[in-house]
This record gives sequence, C-alpha cells and structure tokens, in this order.
Amino acid sequence: MHFRDSKRKVDYVLAYHYRKCFARHPPGAGSPELTHGSASLALVSNGGTGKGRAEPQRQDGDHHAPQEHPGVEVIELGPLDALEEEKRLQREEYERNLVEAGLEIEKDPENKSQGLSFVRIHAPWQVLSREAELLKIKMPTKKMYEITEEGGILKTLNEIWCKLTEPLQPQVPQQGNTNMKSLSYPFSREKIYLYNIKDKDTFFDNATRSRIVREILKRTSTKARNSMGIGTLIASNVYDAAYPLHDGEYEGQNDDMNERKLLYREWARYGVFYKFQPIDLIRKYFGEKIGLYFAWLGLYTEFLIPSSVVGIIVFLYGCITIESDIPSKEMCDQRNTFTMCPLCDKFCDYWNLSSACATAQASHLFDNPATVLFSIFMALWATMFLEQWKRLQMRLSYFWDLTGLEEEEEHPRPEYETKLLQKKLKNKNFTTENSNEEEKKKLTWSDRMPGYAANLGLILFMIMLTFSAVFGVIVYRITTAAALSFSTNETTRSNVRVTVTATAVIINLVVILILDEIYGAVAKWLTEIEVPKTEKTFEERLILKAFLLKFVNSYAPIFYVAFFKGRFVGRPGHYVYVFDGYRMEECAPGGCLMELCIQLSIIMLGKQLIQNNLFEIGIPKLKKLFRKLKDERTEPKEMDTNQSKDPQQWDLDYILEPFTGLTPEYMEMIIQFGFVTLFVASFPLAPLFALLNNIIEVRLDAKKFVTELRRPDTVRAKDIGIWYNILSGIGKLSVIINAFVIAVTSDFIPRLMYQYAYSQNGTMHGFINHTLSYFNVSHLKAGTQPENSPFAQDVIFCRFKDYREPPWSQNQYEFSKQYWAVLSARLAFVILFQNLVMFLSVLVDWMIPDIPKDISEQIKKEKSVLIDFFLKEEHEKLKLIESFIARDKKKHKSGTKGERIRAASFCQFNQSRKGSFASFSSQHTEV
Amino acid sequence: MHFRDSKRKVDYVLAYHYRKCFARHPPGAGSPELTHGSASLALVSNGGTGKGRAEPQRQDGDHHAPQEHPGVEVIELGPLDALEEEKRLQREEYERNLVEAGLEIEKDPENKSQGLSFVRIHAPWQVLSREAELLKIKMPTKKMYEITEEGGILKTLNEIWCKLTEPLQPQVPQQGNTNMKSLSYPFSREKIYLYNIKDKDTFFDNATRSRIVREILKRTSTKARNSMGIGTLIASNVYDAAYPLHDGEYEGQNDDMNERKLLYREWARYGVFYKFQPIDLIRKYFGEKIGLYFAWLGLYTEFLIPSSVVGIIVFLYGCITIESDIPSKEMCDQRNTFTMCPLCDKFCDYWNLSSACATAQASHLFDNPATVLFSIFMALWATMFLEQWKRLQMRLSYFWDLTGLEEEEEHPRPEYETKLLQKKLKNKNFTTENSNEEEKKKLTWSDRMPGYAANLGLILFMIMLTFSAVFGVIVYRITTAAALSFSTNETTRSNVRVTVTATAVIINLVVILILDEIYGAVAKWLTEIEVPKTEKTFEERLILKAFLLKFVNSYAPIFYVAFFKGRFVGRPGHYVYVFDGYRMEECAPGGCLMELCIQLSIIMLGKQLIQNNLFEIGIPKLKKLFRKLKDERTEPKEMDTNQSKDPQQWDLDYILEPFTGLTPEYMEMIIQFGFVTLFVASFPLAPLFALLNNIIEVRLDAKKFVTELRRPDTVRAKDIGIWYNILSGIGKLSVIINAFVIAVTSDFIPRLMYQYAYSQNGTMHGFINHTLSYFNVSHLKAGTQPENSPFAQDVIFCRFKDYREPPWSQNQYEFSKQYWAVLSARLAFVILFQNLVMFLSVLVDWMIPDIPKDISEQIKKEKSVLIDFFLKEEHEKLKLIESFIARDKKKHKSGTKGERIRAASFCQFNQSRKGSFASFSSQHTEV
Repeated sequence: MHFRDSKRKVDYVLAYHYRKCFARHPPGAGSPELTHGSASLALVSNGGTGKGRAEPQRQDGDHHAPQEHPGVEVIELGPLDALEEEKRLQREEYERNLVEAGLEIEKDPENKSQGLSFVRIHAPWQVLSREAELLKIKMPTKKMYEITEEGGILKTLNEIWCKLTEPLQPQVPQQGNTNMKSLSYPFSREKIYLYNIKDKDTFFDNATRSRIVREILKRTSTKARNSMGIGTLIASNVYDAAYPLHDGEYEGQNDDMNERKLLYREWARYGVFYKFQPIDLIRKYFGEKIGLYFAWLGLYTEFLIPSSVVGIIVFLYGCITIESDIPSKEMCDQRNTFTMCPLCDKFCDYWNLSSACATAQASHLFDNPATVLFSIFMALWATMFLEQWKRLQMRLSYFWDLTGLEEEEEHPRPEYETKLLQKKLKNKNFTTENSNEEEKKKLTWSDRMPGYAANLGLILFMIMLTFSAVFGVIVYRITTAAALSFSTNETTRSNVRVTVTATAVIINLVVILILDEIYGAVAKWLTEIEVPKTEKTFEERLILKAFLLKFVNSYAPIFYVAFFKGRFVGRPGHYVYVFDGYRMEECAPGGCLMELCIQLSIIMLGKQLIQNNLFEIGIPKLKKLFRKLKDERTEPKEMDTNQSKDPQQWDLDYILEPFTGLTPEYMEMIIQFGFVTLFVASFPLAPLFALLNNIIEVRLDAKKFVTELRRPDTVRAKDIGIWYNILSGIGKLSVIINAFVIAVTSDFIPRLMYQYAYSQNGTMHGFINHTLSYFNVSHLKAGTQPENSPFAQDVIFCRFKDYREPPWSQNQYEFSKQYWAVLSARLAFVILFQNLVMFLSVLVDWMIPDIPKDISEQIKKEKSVLIDFFLKEEHEKLKLIESFIARDKKKHKSGTKGERIRAASFCQFNQSRKGSFASFSSQHTEV
Repeated sequence: MHFRDSKRKVDYVLAYHYRKCFARHPPGAGSPELTHGSASLALVSNGGTGKGRAEPQRQDGDHHAPQEHPGVEVIELGPLDALEEEKRLQREEYERNLVEAGLEIEKDPENKSQGLSFVRIHAPWQVLSREAELLKIKMPTKKMYEITEEGGILKTLNEIWCKLTEPLQPQVPQQGNTNMKSLSYPFSREKIYLYNIKDKDTFFDNATRSRIVREILKRTSTKARNSMGIGTLIASNVYDAAYPLHDGEYEGQNDDMNERKLLYREWARYGVFYKFQPIDLIRKYFGEKIGLYFAWLGLYTEFLIPSSVVGIIVFLYGCITIESDIPSKEMCDQRNTFTMCPLCDKFCDYWNLSSACATAQASHLFDNPATVLFSIFMALWATMFLEQWKRLQMRLSYFWDLTGLEEEEEHPRPEYETKLLQKKLKNKNFTTENSNEEEKKKLTWSDRMPGYAANLGLILFMIMLTFSAVFGVIVYRITTAAALSFSTNETTRSNVRVTVTATAVIINLVVILILDEIYGAVAKWLTEIEVPKTEKTFEERLILKAFLLKFVNSYAPIFYVAFFKGRFVGRPGHYVYVFDGYRMEECAPGGCLMELCIQLSIIMLGKQLIQNNLFEIGIPKLKKLFRKLKDERTEPKEMDTNQSKDPQQWDLDYILEPFTGLTPEYMEMIIQFGFVTLFVASFPLAPLFALLNNIIEVRLDAKKFVTELRRPDTVRAKDIGIWYNILSGIGKLSVIINAFVIAVTSDFIPRLMYQYAYSQNGTMHGFINHTLSYFNVSHLKAGTQPENSPFAQDVIFCRFKDYREPPWSQNQYEFSKQYWAVLSARLAFVILFQNLVMFLSVLVDWMIPDIPKDISEQIKKEKSVLIDFFLKEEHEKLKLIESFIARDKKKHKSGTKGERIRAASFCQFNQSRKGSFASFSSQHTEV
C-alpha cells in the first residue's frame, strides 16, 4: 500500500510487461534515470539526457536505436525487439513527464529477461492541492451547519420508520453527527484556512487522490509520439493496465478494518440481502457514478415491492373470481354444445368448445377487470419511480456535494486521434493547396460517412435478422402443428398446442440469448467503426445501439403474439394460407392474452435465470481461470520465486478483472424494466419475479465489484445519463402498449360491450354465444372438409370466433355491425386510456417537485451560510490587520529583522491566514 | 444623473412624500444627520445620536416622539402626524443603515410643509466590488479568445445571410470585434489583476450598478420595525417608489447619444418594424429577464413567418380546388334534389340541399386534405419552435455569461412576513407551552388552509361562470333562432343563421374581454390570499392561476363549437329538446368546421385588436392623464416654482408608470400561441394574423418600456421559467385537439372512407347521397310537421345528415353499420395521428441538441482557456517572486526604508498584481 519508505501512499499503479532485448545495465538497476540503485525514489528533475535520447530516436527512426547504446551487441535486435525498445522509450518519456508534473514514482527493478513490472505513483500534497483547485473539487470546510428537519408528524413518522428499519440498516460507521453537514466549498489554496486540514496525507481520501492522479495521467502526453495520455499508451500496449489500488484484503479476521472489508461484510454478501445498501460508503469507495448505479438499483428494487404486492393481489383476485366468471362457466358447461369449425384442413374434426375449458379458466386469471386497473397503476408507478429517482438523485448530489458540478472537458479517444492522424497524413500526401485549417482539426461528415452507412446498414440487417428469427419460429409452429395433426397417435394430437407452444417459446428463448450476446459485440464494434470523439459520446452511442438491438430482440416475439398472432387467419371457407397450404396460426380459444402471458413469463424468467445469474456468475469465473492458466503458462517459475512470498496489493489487484463499465449492468435492468412495464397488463406477476431477481442481483453485482474487479477509477457524475431517457421512453411506450393489450388482445372490451349494450338482462350470460359466428359447412372449399369425422353428417353450421354476418344474411360472412361497434369501443378505449394515463403521469410529474423541498431549502441555506462565513472571515482579517498596524506603530524603528518578520508574516497572512505557507513564501523566509 | 458634485453617479432613487408636522429645523436643513447644510454629502459615520433617538422611540411607542424634540409645540400632533413621524424615523434609520453598508446618499432639503422628496444613492467602488464578488457577477477579463466559426459551406451561407439582412440589422455600435469574446470570470477582488479595469467608475455598467444597489436595498433592514428591505418599506408607504434612473432623454436631436435614445431610434419606433431587435443592447439596458422576453418574442415572430406562408398556401389550395371538389359540386347541383327534413318544428319547411351551396363551398376552403398535412406541420412547428428557443436561450446565456448561474436566494415577500408576524403575536397570546420552534418560523399547512380553500372554491366558481356564459350564449342562439323563425318577414327568416351566428360570436367576444379583465384581477387577489413566501413563487402561482382562468375563458366557446355543437340533436322524429320545446342547435349543412372557423377567427382577431392593441395603447395613456391630473390637484404650485425650471432625471422618471412585470405581455402571447396551434386544423390563416399582430406588438412593447415606464430593475434570468412549460403543454395539447378536429369535426374521414370503401368507382361521386339518411315523414310526431308547407303532400321521405338505418330496414333509424365503421376509422385516425405526431415531435426534440454544438464547444474551450490563463498568471507570479528574491539577496542590508517598500509592494503584489491597492494595503503605506 505504500512506497518502500512505508510513508508515501501508492495512489495509482501502472503495470507493463517488459522484455529485455539486451542486458546493458547490471541487474537490479533498471533504466538509469528512473531507479538509482534498487531503492525507491522520486525524480526531481531529469535534464538533457532523457530528452536527448528520445529525440534523435524519433527523428531517425528505430534502426538507430542501438547506436544509443554503444558497446552492446546489435545482432539480436529483431523487429520485435525494436518495438519493445520503442515502448520502453515511450514509458521512460511518459514517466519523466509525470515526474515533471509533480508526481512521485517508484519502480521495481527489471531484473529478469522479461516479466511484469509495476510503476507506483504517489501524489504529494502540492500536486493534490493544485489539482483539487483546478478540478474544483468541493471539500468540507470547518463550518458545520444543522440540517433542519421536518417538524411535526412527519418527524415522528420518520423516527418510527428509522426505529423499525434499524435491523435493516447496514452497520457502517457514520461520520459524525448526521444532523450536521459541513459546508463544502471548491478547494482553493488561497482560502486554505477555510478547510479543516488535520493531516495533509489524509485530507483527500483515497478515491479523490486516485482521481487526481488519473486526471494527470490522462493529461500528460508523450510529445515524441504525439500521443495523449494514458489511454493511448494502454491502447498501444505500452502499458498493460492502470488502476488505483484496493484498500486491502476483503477477507480475513484480522483487526485492521478497511473500507473494502467493511463493504464486503455489510453489503457484498448474500447473507445481508435484506439490508439497505451503505450508499455513502459505496460512493466513497467506488466514486459517484457507481454509487448512483447502486442507489438506482436499490430504489428500483424497493419500488418493485409495492408493485409485486399489487400484482399478487390482482392475480389472487383472478383466482378467487374464477368460479363466478360467467363466460368461462359457460364455456365449460357441457350442456352448451358449440360445435366449432375444424382447426386445420382435412385432418382436423369439428370440436366442442367445452373441451377448451381449462384454457378459458386459466386465461381468466390474467384477463379480468383488475388487470386494467393494474396497468393504470403500473403506468403511474413508472412515473412515480422516475420522479422519485430524480428526487433521490438530487438528494444524493446535495449530500455528495455535486450541486453545481459542471461538465468536464473530455479528451478525445485514442482511436479518434489515430484516425485524425491518418487523415492528416493522407491530406499531406494528396492535397496541399485546398487545405482548410478547420477541417484538418476534426473529422468531417465525409470522413464519417462510411462508418455511419455501415452502422445503418448493419443495424437494419440485425433487426431484419431478429424478425426472420421470429418468423422462423412462426413457421416452425405452423409446420409442426400441421405435422403433428397428421399424426395418428391420439395423445400426440390432443397435446399439439401445448407441445408446439412450449417448444417454440424455448426456441425463442435460445435465439434471444444467442442473439443478445452477438448484438452486444456487434454494437460495440459498430460504435468503434463510428469513431466517436470522446468517451462520453462513445458510451452514449454504444448504449443506444445496444439498447435498440437488444430491445427489438427481446420483445419482437412478444409483440408478435400480442398484436399480430391470430389476426390474419381469415375465416372458415376463406382461410389465409402461407407456403402452399399451411393455414396461419390462431390463438387458443381462451384468447391470445393467455399465450402472451406464457411467452412473456418464459422469456422473462429464462432470460433472468440463464443470462443474468448463470452467465454473470459463470463467465467471470471461467475468465479468471483462463487468465490464471495463461499467466502460469507464460511465466512459469520466475514470478513464483521472486514475489509469491509476499504478494503486494498491486500484485493482487493485477490478477483481478479490469472494470469495463456499467453498461451491461444497466442494460440488464432496463430490459427487465421493460418486461415489468410494457406488457404488465398480461402478466401481473412480472414485478414479483423482477423483485426476486433483483434481490440477488444487487448482491451479485456488489460481490463482483468488491471481490472480482480491480478498483475502478472514481468518476464524478450527477445523474445516470442517457439511461434516464431510455427509462422514461419505456415508461411512455408502456402506456400505449398496455392500452392496446387491454383493448385489442384481451376480451375486456367485448365483455363490457356485451354487458352494457347487447345483453338482454345486463348480465354476461350468453356472451360466448354472442362472440361466435355461424358458418355453413357446405360453404367449405372442396378438399378442406374433415375427412374422418364421425358426426360430419349432423353438422350444418359450425361456429368460429369472430363478429361476422351469419350465412343467412344478405352480406354473408362480412364483418357485422357488432364488429365495427366493438372495434370503435376498443379504439375509443385506447384513446381514453392513453390520454388519461398520460395526463395522470404529467400530473404526478408536476405535483412531485423534482428537487425535494427540504433539499432545495438546504441548498439555499447553504448559500447564505457560505456568504456569512466569508464575510465573517473577512471581518476577522480586517481586525487582524488593524492590530498589525497598531503593533507596527509601536515598533516603528525596532530594526531590520523585526521588520522583515512582520512583512513576511503579513504576506503569509494575505495568502493563507492560518494554513500552510505557500511555496514562495517559505522559499522567501529560507533565503 | 449625478450628485451635486457632478461626479458621483446616481445609481438609484428612492422617492417619498413628506408632510411636516412641526418646523424645528431651519428650512433647507432637513434632518441634522443626513444633510449638513443644503449641500449634498455622504455620511461616513453616524454615531450614537441617531441610534439613541431611534431606540427609545421603538420601546416607548409613538406618543413619546415629541419628547425627543423639546421646545416644539406638541398640540399639532394628531394620529396622522404620528404616523408621518413614524415613517420619517423609519426612513432615517433605513438611510443610516444604507450609509453603514457603504452606500453614499444625497437628499434634497425638505423645505416645504409637504411635498415629494428624493433620496439619491451612489455606490462607491468599494461597495460595488464587494457586492459583485458576493453576487458572483461574471465580468470580462483581459483575456480574449476567438470564437471558432463553422467552416466550409455553412460559413459561406452565413456570410450571404448576413449580407442580405444587413439593411434589417439595427444600427447599434458593436462592442469590438464580434469574433472575439472576452473570457468572463466571477468578479473577485483577490484576482483583480485579471480584469481590464480602465476606469473604476465605468467598469460596472449602469445596469449592474443599479442591480447591486437594489440588492443592498433589499438586504438592509430597519431593525426597529422588524422589517426587511425596501419592499416592506414601500408596501408600508414609508417610501413611494424606488427605481434606477433612465440613461437620459430619449428624444431630442442633441449630440449626446445615450443608450435609451439609441434604443428608441433603432428599436422602439414603428418606423423600424422591419429590423431585427438589438437584443444585446436591450439586455444591457433592461437586464436579462426583459432581454429574454424580447428575444423570445422575436423568435416567435420569426417562426410565424414560415407557418404563415404555409397557411396561405393551404388556404390558396382550398381556393383553387374549390371548383374540382366533387361533394360541393354535387351539393350545388340543382339537378340533385335532396329534400331535407325541416330545421325547426312546425314553422320550418322542407328545404332543398342545394340552397346550402354557398356554405358548402366556403367550408371546402378550410376542410380539405391539405389541412391534415398543415396540422401535422404545425405540431412539428411547435416542437421546432420550442427546441429552437432552448437553443437560442442557451446561446444567449453563453454570450451573456449566464452559464453556471445559480438560483439566488430570495427574501420572503413583505406580505408573508406580516402574516408570520401576526401568527407569532397570536401564538404568544394563546399558546405558550406548545410552541414548536420550527412551526413558528413558517406558515404551516393549517395556516394556509383557508387561502387554499378560497382559491379552489373561487377558481371552480370562475370556471363555472365561464361555462354558464357559454351556455347562456347557446341559449341565446337557440331562442333567437326559434324566435326569428316564427317571424313572418321573409328576409329575416332567410338570414336567421347568419344573424344568430354573428351576434352570438360578438356576445361571446365581449364576454371574453370582460371576464379576461376580471380574471386577471381575481387571479392576483387569489394569489395574495395564498400568501406565497417569495416573489418567485408568487409569480409562478399567479401565472398558473391567470393562465388557467384565461385559457378556459378564451377557449370554452371554441371547444363547444368544435366538439359538442350538433352532436346532441337527436334525429327527425326523436329530437332532443331543451327548455320545453326548443330543439338543440345543429351545425350548418357545410359542417361544423366552418362555424368553428368563424368562431375562431372572430374571437382571435377581436381579442387581438381590442385587447392587445386598443387596451394596451389606450389604458396607459388614460392612466398617465389621470396621474397627472391628480398630481396637479394635490400639489398645485409649489412644485412648479421650485423644480420645473430644470427637471432632473429622477423627476422625469418619477412621473412615468412603474414597471409591474412581464406577466401580461407573456400571457397575451401565450394565449395567441394557443390560437395558432390548438385549432389550426380549422383555421390555417391563424399564423398570418398572429404574425401581423406581433410585428406591431414588438414595437408597442418596446415603446412602452423605453418611453412610458420607469427603468425596471435588472433581473438576471437564465430562462423564461414557467412559461416554457405552459408553451410545451399547449404544444402537446394541440396534437390531440387537432387530431380530434380533423377526425371528428371535419368531413375528412367520411370522405376517405367513402372513396376507398363504399364508392362504386373510387371517386367521390355520390358522397352526399351516402351521408344522408332517409326519414319517413309520416313518422314525424304530431304537431311537429311543417304547417304551411306548399309541397308537404309530395314528400314521403326527407333526408338528414347522419348514418342511420333507412325506414324500410328492420331496425329503422338505428345507427347503421357505416356509422360504426366511420366511427372506427375516425378513432383509428386519432390514435394514428396522435402517436405519429408525438413520435415525430420526440424525434425532432432528440435530433436537435438542446445546446447548439458550437456553443457547447465554446463553453468547453472557455474552460480550458480559463485554466491555461490561470496557470500562466501563476507562473508569472512565481517568476516575479524569484526576481524579487534575487534583488533581495543583493540589497540584503540596504536599510529599513527600502525593506519596507519592498515588503509593501510584495504584499500588494500578492493581493492584486497589477490592479489597484486593496484598501488595507494602502492604509498601511499611509501609516
């Protein structure tokens, strides 16, 4: 954790593999400028030698490199070695520049012919304070102020809540009084007296220190190669990795408690799944961006609790009312003999509706009036969740001192710079006269055209691929169903529908899982082709693409079942055929909602179980194993003999997986959010399953971050960025989709219409009869009649589910007036539902202020406290000056020395009243 | 413009009326502390006397006041005089506190028994710099940087555009190079060397100076009366008015050009209506808030140009295609004899459809397919406008240095404080034990309950009032139409519809105008009842209330015509009757769209002409006249003899109207925006009329601000606040309303349905016949048959406009299948239109970035320039110090004096490297 002097803390580690091409220096010396002997050291200056070596190198190319090392054999220097040497020089230059920027570094001796070496970096106070000022990092000042709490009933309620949830709170030491908050102010060396600096080594915590170092690493360039920052160097393999250190071991019972161990005990274990998350500690350890992710995940999981409860109630309502539901009773009633038209040509027989009794009853579980209320509830739930998130975000950014955080300037990505360089070279070669200064500096539309075109084309292709997969499954269903119905085996034939549906859904699931992985990779590749300028745009575009592809992939089969299946069947005597004789598939007699429900639940559960949990646990384990094997193979014994005795933190961390961003974690949750909201009308238990999944997910992710990944760079972030927009988009989409599911997929509207418009006595009796149209079997086309029907002779009319004119009407088999009336009602319901729910959402949005009232008051209060604090400090300053002047009058002629001391302290006072001497001031007194 | 020493600028003026109750001081002296002699002066300190006088005063109440002035007759002191004395003391205390805060003030001698007196305030550099630092006012630094412009074609296009619009640009001197922008940085006295301070008197411009003074005035309290700031004092009539001064005369040909004159010449005249607005100058003179209003108004007016053009095209399309429109041709064709059922019972006869030919043709002008496209266009237009406004806002806040502006803390309104005081007093009287500290500090829910209840009740009542007014007009129409149709006069009877419609709309308009004024007052009163805490919440709530009431008021009759008129008529033989025998009103044969159009155009035009222009010009004139008369009456001659010879700027400004906020200006425009977007499907010329109105409106408002109002306090604002939300709400509402207008009110869908579903040959021939149902006249109820019909015998069937089953059908007069089919199509169209347009709007919103790309790049660039600038300054500092140290070494023993000078300059360097000596430093050298 420290340099070899055991004093200076290691704030950042760079790792690289080296390979010696020749051995000029004695073992243990390394490059001469950077390690004097084997002891650690920080270079204060490195004069001409370093630069002198680097520059001719660049001008003359690689082949002159050996001349720099006279007396060394040149024979060995192959192209690989030249590359290696080039890298070494880059490293040297880079590290020199770091030292120039004020950082202190320590290197291990490169005492083997090849191996892994670490550069450890320490940031001294001078650098930290300078950078903190430039980065405008808010630090707590001495001034504390009380956070006013709500009075009255709210306070009491809050206290009771705190009492009740006490066992659920993680046992993490709170910093000081929770009712007091220190006033924060962007760090300024001029106002250093404001801050409560007890120890300069611990004033900035580890996360802040590593962030500062990271900032310098990003900024420092190696001019020789025209590359900018550590990103480029890692991209070009000069360094292997760059990471801050973990706080120590997370396991072990020894006394020295570090934050990592605390996090592991109180957060990153399945054993504490029932506890709240220690968000502040997570933020302190991993930074704001990851803190926000877990806060978001926590809030989402909490919000799933009420919706699960309501979902269960709705489901139970369905179970209880199943007995009293007249339509399903009528369907099951053996006395009602509805002779239905055959389900397939030739081989299928007429059948009795009562045989579909079970599906009718099952579908009532999900297709009942409570579902309508539930989907309104869920739409408002989504709005409430987003609102509440905005509030929580605001609250966190207040307590985390992120208010007023401005967007930071970002450096271009290495890939962008490479591309730009290529372009410049090309321009130099071809056109010299028409060189617009502006256009050289950035990639223009025409440069990006191929990338965009490839993107558009491939995304369209991928979407088509998804659609064809869905279509393939449809074809599978149609053909298999047809094939099975030819079967002579009675049991096979009776289970056709179940068999076909189940296998098809499983195929769908497998396809989704496979395509999901492919699409993830494709999205990444496509974004790289696009060459976005900054890391942020890269992330945003990647997310958008990946989301689009994965969304289409996950939901396409569900959309098909919800809105298209069974709508293009035609009617008896005039069926729609695909592929020469296969009839389009129909929904089960219970309605399409039942099938939608099955489809949804299997895909959602399967995806969660397999992808989120199995993959997420398994794949990192496999990767780790693979890495270990590889490492063991490449470096068989040397490592062991040297370092395995006492592995340092940097060695331990190097073995861990690097952190690759939060995108997959968010993506998983967002797709799940889609399952929970988009088709919730058809599957009220979705929130429950999501809740169960998330309780595991939180700890799974936590465990990954604490135990399996290198410590990520802390990144400041005020919000969750584009994810919020996607969430709110899904929320809006869910309103219209649910409206259509209820209106079009479910039987809600026809029932309502029947009860209030067509029923004789205002009850549902006769509803089934009303929904079935008549068909004269003599109108069946030749060759499509049932072949082996035992009672074909008795049947004159068969029934089918549709609103069509009866055979005895003038316009036989045309859509009847009821059809249009019901359609009108369905559409009117969509309009009503959509606008009502949208209006309610806007209302909720408007009623709940984005910034919690107490927080906005605190922020205002903080400002006035700050001004008071400043004015007071200024006043004190003036007083002090007056007293100086008074003393000055007395001592007017006391001599040179007193005078000098006074002047010096005076100056010092100006600069920093109580704090440390600024550098020049101390230099001055030294003189 | 200046104090009597002609040097110190008057930054702010307080005006009050005084009345002497006794004359102790010799004339011309005023109160002894504030005016020494009659010469102007600024008090530097006012010791015990003033306070000593004020404090016993407070403790003992008013009746002891005379004891303070021994030797003065007490007899005259009535209650009015006591009040007057109280006020005078408050003024004295307040002015003393101002002086203590560092301001310099000058008063006129109170040499008359009563009259108007002015307190003129000047802010010296010390105060200005301190406050500018506290308020974080961004000031330009020395560092300039180039604004990178787009290269390539865009640049050329931009140049051409600039050339073309040159005559339209106002001739306002640009400050320096437009391609360069100074880097701005919040003013800081510690970093004073950053700024380009040529003259301390002009470094802060007039607007900033007056803002600073205003800030101090708001903050300074008179402890004695427990009141806070100038707001309370004005509210309690201690002062009459507080305002900054205008820059001078706006008329006159003399050479001294001031900004007000410039604004008048280049902006605030009708003569320059074709020119762009000098937004930067407006902002400089009136502040950001007013600047944003005019920028918004300008953008809105510009955006109206394309929509007017498209509107005219749509209208012309209607005019051109009127000849080829088959339905109206069929209607006008004398050969088609559609005998229509009578329009009223008993007195009306059967009539021929061709007699309604003219209205059919007129309605085609507005009811044609182009209208659908136009309303999609307008929905997108609204989105584009809002997006563009966001961008312009962002651009302005970049150029006006408002980026990063934080919300300022606001002081509670005086009314709120009064209420709080009352509550405290009450609490003291009644409960002493149950006194919650928190609850005392603010008004709780229970305190506000009556206010909220009154609000809710009155708003509901007002809305009911509007509805009853609309209903009253409906009743007027029904009864008048019935009454006129009894008339025996042939011409009267033939013009029934025209007469009734025209008079009814005019009544509507008058009601709207009257209620509008009432609602404005009621909304204000209601908001005052609510006692909002800060000025901002007051404004927001007032706006919301006023908008709600005015919106309902303006649009209720239009909504009625669009969606309800003619839908509850019933059918022949089964009409719906109201009030014992009056049939509900029907739309004209041409469709309701025509009537909607008439209603809309008359209300919109009438409202604009009468309210916006007549009222806005007339009422201020009248008010001015009234004020003048009143002033002349109360102060007949004294003023004239003394001051009229040479009226100072403060006298001139005092005569002007005070500025009362931008709410009415915005409200007017927002209601107009509603007319332009909400029902645009029925009246494509609305944008044109709005455009014409706004061209006048801009100059009208400008003129008002420049010539008729006192100079408003400059207020910093980053955006237009709640108005943006209202605008975007109207934009969203317009989508659904237009969808319904097209689907339900217009004949668009039935025509489409006929052409593609029912027509024999795919043309519109026969459409009229298809829309008319048959009625067997023998089914007319007894007593409702036409009495004096010449051809009653010949008529067996009469026709009426509806889709109903014919008399010969089984279910006669029920809605036919066509009815339901058309209804389904209408509703499907609504869903399609709404979701399509919403999707497109979201797309437009998403495609156009909120922050213009060049601006966001500039902002980022500015940040890095700032950091470079700072680092460079720091570097120079270090170098300078080094040179000092070098000199120090040489002169090591040169003596006390040199040493002292060095030390002093050293200190000064620390504080302000090149700028002025800070106060204490200069004090030090004086010593």
